[in-house]
Amino acid sequence: MPEKSPTGSAAGADTGREEILAAARGAREAAAEFAAATRDTKDTLLNAMADALARRSGEILDANELDLTAARDSGMPEAMLDRLKLTESRVAEVASGLRTVAGLPDPVGETVRGSMLPNGLELRQVRVPLGVVGIVYEGRPNVTVDAAGLTLKSGNAVLLRGSSSAVRSNTALVSILRDVLVESGFSPNLVTLLPCADRSSVGHLVTARGLVDLVIPRGGAGLINAVVEEATVPVIETGVGNCHVYVDRAADTEKTRQVVRNAKTRRVSVCNAAETLLVHREVAETLLPGLARELAETGVTLHADERAAETIGNAAPVTPATEQDWDTEYLSMDLAVAVVDSPDEAMAHIARHGTGHTEAIVSEDVSTVRRFTTRVDSAAVVVNASTAFTDGAQFGMGAEIGISTQKLHARGPMALPELTTTKWLVWGDGHTRP
Amino acid sequence: MPEKSPTGSAAGADTGREEILAAARGAREAAAEFAAATRDTKDTLLNAMADALARRSGEILDANELDLTAARDSGMPEAMLDRLKLTESRVAEVASGLRTVAGLPDPVGETVRGSMLPNGLELRQVRVPLGVVGIVYEGRPNVTVDAAGLTLKSGNAVLLRGSSSAVRSNTALVSILRDVLVESGFSPNLVTLLPCADRSSVGHLVTARGLVDLVIPRGGAGLINAVVEEATVPVIETGVGNCHVYVDRAADTEKTRQVVRNAKTRRVSVCNAAETLLVHREVAETLLPGLARELAETGVTLHADERAAETIGNAAPVTPATEQDWDTEYLSMDLAVAVVDSPDEAMAHIARHGTGHTEAIVSEDVSTVRRFTTRVDSAAVVVNASTAFTDGAQFGMGAEIGISTQKLHARGPMALPELTTTKWLVWGDGHTRP
Repeated sequence: MPEKSPTGSAAGADTGREEILAAARGAREAAAEFAAATRDTKDTLLNAMADALARRSGEILDANELDLTAARDSGMPEAMLDRLKLTESRVAEVASGLRTVAGLPDPVGETVRGSMLPNGLELRQVRVPLGVVGIVYEGRPNVTVDAAGLTLKSGNAVLLRGSSSAVRSNTALVSILRDVLVESGFSPNLVTLLPCADRSSVGHLVTARGLVDLVIPRGGAGLINAVVEEATVPVIETGVGNCHVYVDRAADTEKTRQVVRNAKTRRVSVCNAAETLLVHREVAETLLPGLARELAETGVTLHADERAAETIGNAAPVTPATEQDWDTEYLSMDLAVAVVDSPDEAMAHIARHGTGHTEAIVSEDVSTVRRFTTRVDSAAVVVNASTAFTDGAQFGMGAEIGISTQKLHARGPMALPELTTTKWLVWGDGHTRP
Repeated sequence: MPEKSPTGSAAGADTGREEILAAARGAREAAAEFAAATRDTKDTLLNAMADALARRSGEILDANELDLTAARDSGMPEAMLDRLKLTESRVAEVASGLRTVAGLPDPVGETVRGSMLPNGLELRQVRVPLGVVGIVYEGRPNVTVDAAGLTLKSGNAVLLRGSSSAVRSNTALVSILRDVLVESGFSPNLVTLLPCADRSSVGHLVTARGLVDLVIPRGGAGLINAVVEEATVPVIETGVGNCHVYVDRAADTEKTRQVVRNAKTRRVSVCNAAETLLVHREVAETLLPGLARELAETGVTLHADERAAETIGNAAPVTPATEQDWDTEYLSMDLAVAVVDSPDEAMAHIARHGTGHTEAIVSEDVSTVRRFTTRVDSAAVVVNASTAFTDGAQFGMGAEIGISTQKLHARGPMALPELTTTKWLVWGDGHTRP
């Protein structure tokens, strides 16, 4: 079979490959030593990092100002500029995030399973760090620190491949983190910022098999697909969320209003926001016109199928839904709406168009809810509550490095335990196998 | 970034792609329905399959005879012919394996974590089937039935891509399993044998992203690498085991003899057999000559480094070890032997040459053992016992679909829970997120 191209860019395919591999080897060596670090040591390290970020916020803001100027000059839209921008208070938030992670339990060393075998062997499955974790992300420079905090707390080294628009901010942040590593007696190679001038560094990172244990792409579908197509190291797909709310014929009217409104409008740019509303035909007449009016009044554009449009009538303006609407993660004040004949039709729609992130049902009928929760194959299935709850902090994990929409290793919000693997320890006394 | 080639063979690149995708779609549809099957239903199904295999063993043996004749004509060596051969008693063993799996607990539905959140939301993480699992394997036709049994018990559909040398045997076996599926009211597409005429079907299977949830390659390093390089669907690497035994200076002599002998000679063709022996220099003189003699007498060829050869002297014949020996999984009556200065030198050797399968230490020294178990990064780390224990049945899992040597999702022996994923269930009462 042909070897995969180590990069997506036709020109300069091998530019910098050695640099990435050297960084990965450095990270691997540092990780091997760091795997045995105790919780006390790691928490002290993270708190020292938080202190240093606060103390040196001037450097960070200066670097960020250069990124912002370059971005403005290149015509970056205002909303994206805001994502890129750091302020004194945003730096303080980032530092406070590190302190929160320091306060979380350390997953390393946890005994997952254990038993004494009939022959007297003592068997334990314990959590250990993964080793070297790569994060490929877009936009916000705060991800640089958040990702470093979570991977370090779980005992790993991290290779960060951020966006070129944030390169000066990221360089300042990582330089501060590395200074603290050295001052604390650790290898600076536990946190490395990879070059980001072109796409090729992503290719080198995701094909560094044997050096990198996991790559997590955080960003849009384009970034994630590119990584998955090219990767030979294990990848966890995150974050694409075409989430559905199904309003059953046994739905409570008030709960429906609360849930649909919150799922769609609480924050439209996040992956757990609802993108499609499916309404059972038996309650469409009573529920949909009022709901549509309320949503339209808060600024939601409704993309309605024929039956939904007819039911809504003059209650609110609607746009006819096209086949493409069912597959679109709007991330905006848009909502696709369809009327369905049954829960099974709703589930079939979800199976065809969903991305396996989060789907909600609003219903008071136990049998229908049971059928829906059993049969819908998504990371999270929500009953009578907003899709917005699919989130590491909301789930009580204290933090989150992403929301996995794949089935292997981690599914749903990923926090510290998801950044570890396990090891079997087998203790005997000269035992041999017959 | 460029799309991966869907196949490794230059000619006929797309031959049969549609056939594989159609099989995957059929499996996916069948799996969606089967995910809700109860344990009772699945156990009844597996026992009916066992009955049918026993009842129709004549058909199986006839088909196997044709495979054997073709293999003999093509000059297959005797040892491989024996792996291919089925007999009345081997078919009975395969059937009995299905009954064993029927008797194991069903992982589906198990609550892994659960809590009531401060806002009253009820949160549960429950085990659910993966969906469609592909198995790519070589040699033995019994794997066909074993793999089908484990994937069905865990609620999945299976796509089997066996070796062309066993195609008639595999066809007979799968045809019987599918007959039982239909008689039991299930879709026959829960178990599908894929074409195996050339390598291309493997390429189509491992790039069927969105249709196949997991591919497990079972076979040699060549097969595994080919699958990993080409795959865009998640893969779990299995089975390559360059296992080490480290004999510490605080090793007990009798335990050393037992463990080394068992780890090397119990069964040499399996992945948990020891391939390299590392002996601390302080006990080399007292332990190594006798141990080497004993191993040589049972037919083991020793590939010794300079110091080991010098220490063994005339006690046993040795071959000088080359650099390549340290990286070789012999799977034969060969053992590489080196003398090391310290536990840290042993661990460095293991880190450089090991495959992360199983490493053992023989030592009575608690601090050394603690350092070794903490720092050696392998699926299993064994203290004062044989490496041969790394096995699903030995670990009390009742069965095994392979031994994962990677860190994501499953590490070490994989049984039924490792063939599932999880889903978060969130129950509320009209809850919205502030």
